Amino acid sequence: MSLKLTILGCHSATPRVNANPTAQFLEIQNHHFLIDCGEGTQVQLRKYGVKFSKIKHIFISHLHGDHSFGLIGLISTFRLLNRETELHVYGPKGIKEIITLQLKLSNSWTQYPLLFHELSETTSQLIFEDATVEVYTIPLNHRVYTNGFLFKEKEGERKLDMNAVFNYNEIEVCDYQNLKNGRDFILKNGTVLKNEDLTLPPSKPKSYAFCSDTSYLPEIVPIIENATCLYHETTFLKDKENLAITTMHSTAEQAAKIAKQAKVEQLIIGHYSGRYKNVDAFKAEAQTVFKNTELAETGKVFEF
Amino acid sequence: MSLKLTILGCHSATPRVNANPTAQFLEIQNHHFLIDCGEGTQVQLRKYGVKFSKIKHIFISHLHGDHSFGLIGLISTFRLLNRETELHVYGPKGIKEIITLQLKLSNSWTQYPLLFHELSETTSQLIFEDATVEVYTIPLNHRVYTNGFLFKEKEGERKLDMNAVFNYNEIEVCDYQNLKNGRDFILKNGTVLKNEDLTLPPSKPKSYAFCSDTSYLPEIVPIIENATCLYHETTFLKDKENLAITTMHSTAEQAAKIAKQAKVEQLIIGHYSGRYKNVDAFKAEAQTVFKNTELAETGKVFEF
Repeated sequence: MSLKLTILGCHSATPRVNANPTAQFLEIQNHHFLIDCGEGTQVQLRKYGVKFSKIKHIFISHLHGDHSFGLIGLISTFRLLNRETELHVYGPKGIKEIITLQLKLSNSWTQYPLLFHELSETTSQLIFEDATVEVYTIPLNHRVYTNGFLFKEKEGERKLDMNAVFNYNEIEVCDYQNLKNGRDFILKNGTVLKNEDLTLPPSKPKSYAFCSDTSYLPEIVPIIENATCLYHETTFLKDKENLAITTMHSTAEQAAKIAKQAKVEQLIIGHYSGRYKNVDAFKAEAQTVFKNTELAETGKVFEF
Repeated sequence: MSLKLTILGCHSATPRVNANPTAQFLEIQNHHFLIDCGEGTQVQLRKYGVKFSKIKHIFISHLHGDHSFGLIGLISTFRLLNRETELHVYGPKGIKEIITLQLKLSNSWTQYPLLFHELSETTSQLIFEDATVEVYTIPLNHRVYTNGFLFKEKEGERKLDMNAVFNYNEIEVCDYQNLKNGRDFILKNGTVLKNEDLTLPPSKPKSYAFCSDTSYLPEIVPIIENATCLYHETTFLKDKENLAITTMHSTAEQAAKIAKQAKVEQLIIGHYSGRYKNVDAFKAEAQTVFKNTELAETGKVFEF
């Protein structure tokens, strides 16, 4: 398992008893990312046993309340818990002003470095990268400036083919890293052993595409193509497609169409409107188009 | 019953599972006041069956998160519920900027009139008054500008003494309101019947003093004197009195001293620090000074 997703909240608009707004905790290659942060997210993190200190990067899709009103509280709680490590916040332009105004007026500046990465581009951007993971924006189409996020593992090292390696006494343990890095091996007699004869290809990198509120937007397909998992917010069923258009949300069927076009392995849907008492119909509607669809449920964990 | 208080949250600093930050719902003379609004308050209102449309006035003591971070969410939810009636928000200068910045950046202006009454005075002010109720600020002493609030019934009408009234055939039902208003009655023969011989004094007006985070502050005693009920936040026990001084909070004993000096009828304490697993010690400590002390508990209702 190199990708683990915990749903902290998956309901739309207003927080209600047992219906938390959007927030997800993503573990990928030893990174711990919080994605969106509706009101009450810090309590959900406690409820589902996420250690606060693990979170170093928070990604906010847009500034509607059900995706962002829990951020100031979480930042303040980190302060009260005497956090020292950096916190990086990625979100729409304006997010820094919102947070800093509140910290100023409550005379509660963080003692830890709080770093904002404000987003305003309308094409997909690489916004985070290190040795093992990349994060790209997925520009969406909603009532306010909105991005989804694509979290991608980088291609890993090649794997040693020990059956092949053990044929050569000259190859020692200290040579293994060079082989994993793709280098050929030269025997003392000058013979060149091709890397592909000593190693196996790395596992296929996994990726997670998070698409929050958006109207139906096939333009995102090239960005999220072949993702291991796509989360796509739906809000409405097909019977309310006109309402979905007006409010710039998607129906379950539309989310499934995106999943199918992008040839993702799995689709997760969520952000159900409060008008639907039973959300099973979302799954049924999506599965008419894309079979491998699962419903987001608060507290549910998906592993890939 | 003319005064009913529902505790929506009574814990300090960070919201936790089953430990909501400060928020109270006060019903007094057909007014419905929300006092403070920590993160998650809107869910607490739903949980305890408060009809959102009843709330027309919100009083915020100060801009620390555990007293105010739920406000933007509640204001936004009122918008999503198509509220039309005015909402009045009373709170420290800056509260308007915090809320309007977020409404602007989320492109979600309220369709209902949202009226801010910003506070900056350091002496007690009358901030709300109508035919039956008055609300005064109680300037407190905390790390940021903070007010408590004193909610007072106005003196009611005198009550008819029907035994006396029935002695005079000349007094008709249409005269009753004048008697209740304190006027004498003149018989046709010119005899003046004194009002106090026909009516009884009105019930003693009730009052509720809400004092949030503050260091020990005897200066508030004249403002809250003889209140029916005083809620005074405590945060710490006497063993942490030094910490109470540094962080500008009060101990349970100090809250009880204020209650005793102000000769209130009842004291409620709350805003317990998360370090205390059992809050019974708060009651025990306060009762050594002021017997009629009760603990705030989430969901508890006090009626006077």
